[in-house]
Amino acid sequence: MTDTNRPLDVVILAAGQGTRMKSSLPKVLHPVAGRPMVAWAVKAARELGARNVVVVTGHGAEAVEAALAGSGVVFARQEQQLGTGHAFLAGMDALDDHREADVLVLYGDTPLLRTETLRDLLADHRERSGAFTVLTGVLPDATGYGRIIRDAQGNVERIVEQKDATPEERAVGEFNSGVYLMDARANELAHRITNENASGEYYLTDLLGLYRAEGAEAHAFRLNDPDEVMGANDRTGLAEAENIIRARITQAHMRAGVTIHMPETVYIEDTVVLGRDVTLEPGVILRGDTRVADGAQIGAYSVVTDSVLAEGVVVKPHSVLEGAQVGARSDVGPFARLRPGTVLGEAVHIGNFVETKNAQLAQGVKAGHLAYLGDVSIGDETNVGAGTIIANFDGVNKHPSRIGAGVFIGSNSTIVAPRVIGDAAFIAGGSTVHDDVPEGALAVARGKQRNLEGWSHRYWSGLRDKVQTKLPWLAGWLDRQG
Amino acid sequence: MTDTNRPLDVVILAAGQGTRMKSSLPKVLHPVAGRPMVAWAVKAARELGARNVVVVTGHGAEAVEAALAGSGVVFARQEQQLGTGHAFLAGMDALDDHREADVLVLYGDTPLLRTETLRDLLADHRERSGAFTVLTGVLPDATGYGRIIRDAQGNVERIVEQKDATPEERAVGEFNSGVYLMDARANELAHRITNENASGEYYLTDLLGLYRAEGAEAHAFRLNDPDEVMGANDRTGLAEAENIIRARITQAHMRAGVTIHMPETVYIEDTVVLGRDVTLEPGVILRGDTRVADGAQIGAYSVVTDSVLAEGVVVKPHSVLEGAQVGARSDVGPFARLRPGTVLGEAVHIGNFVETKNAQLAQGVKAGHLAYLGDVSIGDETNVGAGTIIANFDGVNKHPSRIGAGVFIGSNSTIVAPRVIGDAAFIAGGSTVHDDVPEGALAVARGKQRNLEGWSHRYWSGLRDKVQTKLPWLAGWLDRQG
Amino acid sequence: MTDTNRPLDVVILAAGQGTRMKSSLPKVLHPVAGRPMVAWAVKAARELGARNVVVVTGHGAEAVEAALAGSGVVFARQEQQLGTGHAFLAGMDALDDHREADVLVLYGDTPLLRTETLRDLLADHRERSGAFTVLTGVLPDATGYGRIIRDAQGNVERIVEQKDATPEERAVGEFNSGVYLMDARANELAHRITNENASGEYYLTDLLGLYRAEGAEAHAFRLNDPDEVMGANDRTGLAEAENIIRARITQAHMRAGVTIHMPETVYIEDTVVLGRDVTLEPGVILRGDTRVADGAQIGAYSVVTDSVLAEGVVVKPHSVLEGAQVGARSDVGPFARLRPGTVLGEAVHIGNFVETKNAQLAQGVKAGHLAYLGDVSIGDETNVGAGTIIANFDGVNKHPSRIGAGVFIGSNSTIVAPRVIGDAAFIAGGSTVHDDVPEGALAVARGKQRNLEGWSHRYWSGLRDKVQTKLPWLAGWLDRQG
Repeated sequence: MTDTNRPLDVVILAAGQGTRMKSSLPKVLHPVAGRPMVAWAVKAARELGARNVVVVTGHGAEAVEAALAGSGVVFARQEQQLGTGHAFLAGMDALDDHREADVLVLYGDTPLLRTETLRDLLADHRERSGAFTVLTGVLPDATGYGRIIRDAQGNVERIVEQKDATPEERAVGEFNSGVYLMDARANELAHRITNENASGEYYLTDLLGLYRAEGAEAHAFRLNDPDEVMGANDRTGLAEAENIIRARITQAHMRAGVTIHMPETVYIEDTVVLGRDVTLEPGVILRGDTRVADGAQIGAYSVVTDSVLAEGVVVKPHSVLEGAQVGARSDVGPFARLRPGTVLGEAVHIGNFVETKNAQLAQGVKAGHLAYLGDVSIGDETNVGAGTIIANFDGVNKHPSRIGAGVFIGSNSTIVAPRVIGDAAFIAGGSTVHDDVPEGALAVARGKQRNLEGWSHRYWSGLRDKVQTKLPWLAGWLDRQG
Repeated sequence: MTDTNRPLDVVILAAGQGTRMKSSLPKVLHPVAGRPMVAWAVKAARELGARNVVVVTGHGAEAVEAALAGSGVVFARQEQQLGTGHAFLAGMDALDDHREADVLVLYGDTPLLRTETLRDLLADHRERSGAFTVLTGVLPDATGYGRIIRDAQGNVERIVEQKDATPEERAVGEFNSGVYLMDARANELAHRITNENASGEYYLTDLLGLYRAEGAEAHAFRLNDPDEVMGANDRTGLAEAENIIRARITQAHMRAGVTIHMPETVYIEDTVVLGRDVTLEPGVILRGDTRVADGAQIGAYSVVTDSVLAEGVVVKPHSVLEGAQVGARSDVGPFARLRPGTVLGEAVHIGNFVETKNAQLAQGVKAGHLAYLGDVSIGDETNVGAGTIIANFDGVNKHPSRIGAGVFIGSNSTIVAPRVIGDAAFIAGGSTVHDDVPEGALAVARGKQRNLEGWSHRYWSGLRDKVQTKLPWLAGWLDRQG
Repeated sequence: MTDTNRPLDVVILAAGQGTRMKSSLPKVLHPVAGRPMVAWAVKAARELGARNVVVVTGHGAEAVEAALAGSGVVFARQEQQLGTGHAFLAGMDALDDHREADVLVLYGDTPLLRTETLRDLLADHRERSGAFTVLTGVLPDATGYGRIIRDAQGNVERIVEQKDATPEERAVGEFNSGVYLMDARANELAHRITNENASGEYYLTDLLGLYRAEGAEAHAFRLNDPDEVMGANDRTGLAEAENIIRARITQAHMRAGVTIHMPETVYIEDTVVLGRDVTLEPGVILRGDTRVADGAQIGAYSVVTDSVLAEGVVVKPHSVLEGAQVGARSDVGPFARLRPGTVLGEAVHIGNFVETKNAQLAQGVKAGHLAYLGDVSIGDETNVGAGTIIANFDGVNKHPSRIGAGVFIGSNSTIVAPRVIGDAAFIAGGSTVHDDVPEGALAVARGKQRNLEGWSHRYWSGLRDKVQTKLPWLAGWLDRQG
């Protein structure tokens, strides 16, 4: 047994081209379940507590490095694609210090590999020789993979590639995942890898022989689920990987006390936090930094991104929330759109065809129908009538407005920003408010009504031909009027 | 063969805690396909024509009893959880009369058990000994279940629990579902069950031995589909059970002449009635007391609850209907919201972003775009312009309005309730109508237009910096104006 | 080997009733993946380059002929349903000339049969005897099907029906699909089919014996996937067939470089063209003549029909497009509805709850919220405020409007068509524009604001009882006012 406090360095090979993706995006940047594939490997490395994480880039190196900027990883460029051994060396060369660390090799296109699995691999490695451990899987038919050839003691003797394998070796179901965990000799030994083989490539697999030549024991750690090292090589592979991760996440939430109706249709990213007795209806999509408190319900086909929902919130079907905070016992939707900067207090009611953006609505505010509330704060209990628009834009700038508590905004009103509406003000329906309204005042800003009797008869008489064919009731009315 | 007219009493055991649900809701109240699980057992009991239905409650008893209030069942409280035999006795004690009835034991957490299966069980029981019949299933590997041990004649000799079973007994695939059907001796015999066993619990299974000790034959009735007695113990179990019920319902509708596109994505509750040649697009959700007549079409992702759709109705995608009636050949949506009290006549057109609530629209009414119609009746052929709002709320009360036939409501009009608009009236676009409008009159209630030439030049000149960067065409125009 | 340039005639049998559909629609007109089933056979025949395509109709003949009108096929009526041999003869009789052509028999209810398969069948037929080739499949258990009995050379000797088969013959897994490819003798030989059998029907299968009696060799061409000849006989069969076609289409797009999230929930018709690096989110539905250029993204649950999306377009979730063109780098939605005649230039922004119909929006136009734009052209960079309505309807006619470039339309404005708004005009929020607006002018058409201080106090005091219970903040305010 070896020192379990050794530091860990992780080298992520992410230089491949991925022609089968048929994409202008580098293979490892294709997203799976909300993250570029390579970011899943980086995340696993971080969760393992890695000291250094090196990402070896090649095809699309700039794009990959840009995508991972700020993640604290070190980049190594593999300018020529001379094989995995060469890529690994490029990664090792990017580190200043190789002493005493274990080195783990991961890949930018295997997003299904679980951190728990790697933890088990690490523990196994350190409990045993601690020199060289390869992660393996077992398949009924491992055709295409390198096979693991063990000696009588069960140690790994060789890894034989498909094309070099004898019939007996091809019958072996244990295959090489390409994930290796090695002690600090890995750097030095990797420099001894040569390209003296049929392909003229540097193979990382050669490290096994080099370790054994040093007298080290090599072990294999077997995956329970060989799918974990499934690489995504085309878009169907991406979809399959995403579906597996998606199912893992929904299953974990269900086991923890979340009701999910038709979970096969629900998509939840692994960054999302859900409380107990949360209910998700079919087709719900939850993304990013979204947190949902106990007992909240999210209706069918709603899409919620980077939002915080408090206890007992009800989001009705077909709502789209992004960057919003929703206070306890508020209800939202259906067909509501909450945009970034929306902060709803407790028991706020947002109804259908209502959009909010950078809008702070205090407790008990009601905006039930067809409204746009942008760049505005609204006080307690204010009623926003159907059709209300905060006209926050002057063509080039956005302006803020402040609406007090207990205000009644009549239907189809337009509030021309920047505007201050005092507490308990009353705005008559259909008004265009271009001056501030004092506390407790009524604002009326609309035309006076005139009724012109007999007008319809003249109007429709002029359109009588069309009325006759399209509007039979009205045609009859015209007839009755004589 | 015994009397097939014997009454039937049903005891539903629903006292369990369900810790794996991780919920504040009692296990048997978790909904599956629109009903709390225990309500599926009550429904089955009713469909069997049960004389008495006793629900034995324990954990969360108040909540369970509240959820089933008004369903006509008798409740029995099992104050201490001393075993299934004890729970059954609690149930029997809640009945005044045990003479002559068959007694069926069901469970509050097996929503998949079909009434048809129970009818077959009942028929089999009554055609044979009529004393004791256990419902069984067969699995390739029944590990964990009690096994059915039969004698040479095929009668049931014993039920042996997993932990007590010999290797030979463990190889038996026939398992005990826990559903028993017994004659009227069940009450008396159940009192003889003891807790003299390793666990100190009263086991309902002991009844089998007690019946046999009386010289009665015990039979087993085998399920075709062992899934029917699958209990839902956590949220994944709920989702699986719901999915099975969902598939049963969609399959039955398809066999009866309903076209369902992508049926795996469609959810229909068992209370819904669908006519022939109804078409459902992907993602449709139909709930509650919804009835859809022949030839109606419901578009993708629409959610319809407690609504009645007549022949040939077309609901376009993304519509939400609740408590609405839609007349023949009307079309609704996309993005329509019909709320309770909506009654549409024939050939009504409701377009996008339109909400109706307590609204009666006579035949041929058109409301095509962006409108709120609340607490209003509207006569034949009336055209509701885009942006029309019925302002039905004064801050605390809702007021009704009446709009006649053949009315033309111009766009962006506001009708301040309570209002009466006469037949064939014409409301000019942009009007706020706060007085009634007589039949055939034109109502104009808006400001007069003034055009101020040259104004834009001054306005944009003042914002020139911003215009320059954001609005290149306008910047050019300003330049051309000099 | 025979002449590969022989013409091909195709006879499609489409006369069956399909009682299990339980429909008023003839069986072969039931749609699968966007086409009536029979149209899939017609499409395959066309793709094979058929000289003549004959569709034999019977049940619902008028409807079937109407559905295929304009497709260039010849119709033959089978007035009485006397068997497949009789139907085939009806088809042959509808052709003037049978010389020299191969004849292929297809069916109106097997939409899964691929053109590629039929091409392989045709090539095989022509490389071999070229006389009689039957398309066959192999199933583990072919119960119910006619079995293929081969001679020692592997040629087809007989086809034996289930009911006539010996136990040895029933063990044969190779079954008759009913699809035959025959040389020009088919017409003459078909006239020799008799109905002298137990059923009194004319069986097309008899042709095999008639060919062999002529000394011709009969061959079988085996399907790789026996599902291809699966007939859809009820609505569950329709759904299964549709699901298989759907999966073929999504898989093909993924292989070609389209990212599809949760592809099991996505529906794409085979007429749709998708560029590289297009991204489709869950639940997307793409129909008809829709073309999507490279790099465009279509958000969850959007439904796009007959529309053209240029490079880099972003359609946000819950949008419905039909007959629309969207220019490069434009963004649309969520909750947008683009109707036929919508043409968006480059970098146009259409936001939530916006409807366009017959609307041409030049580059850079923004219509972000709650608007109806119908029968209108709008110039570069114009800003359409929230709540804007183009009032294009006078009750019976639609009128066009023209809005210039660089116009600012204030919120909640109503433009009463037909209207011309000059370049760089400015419309004040809340205006109803019923006169044209000259270039560079400000139009104001709304009431002037009056503020009545103290009014709210009187208003709410009159409703104090209700305020007390419903609006606690306002009740407190009233108290504070004394």
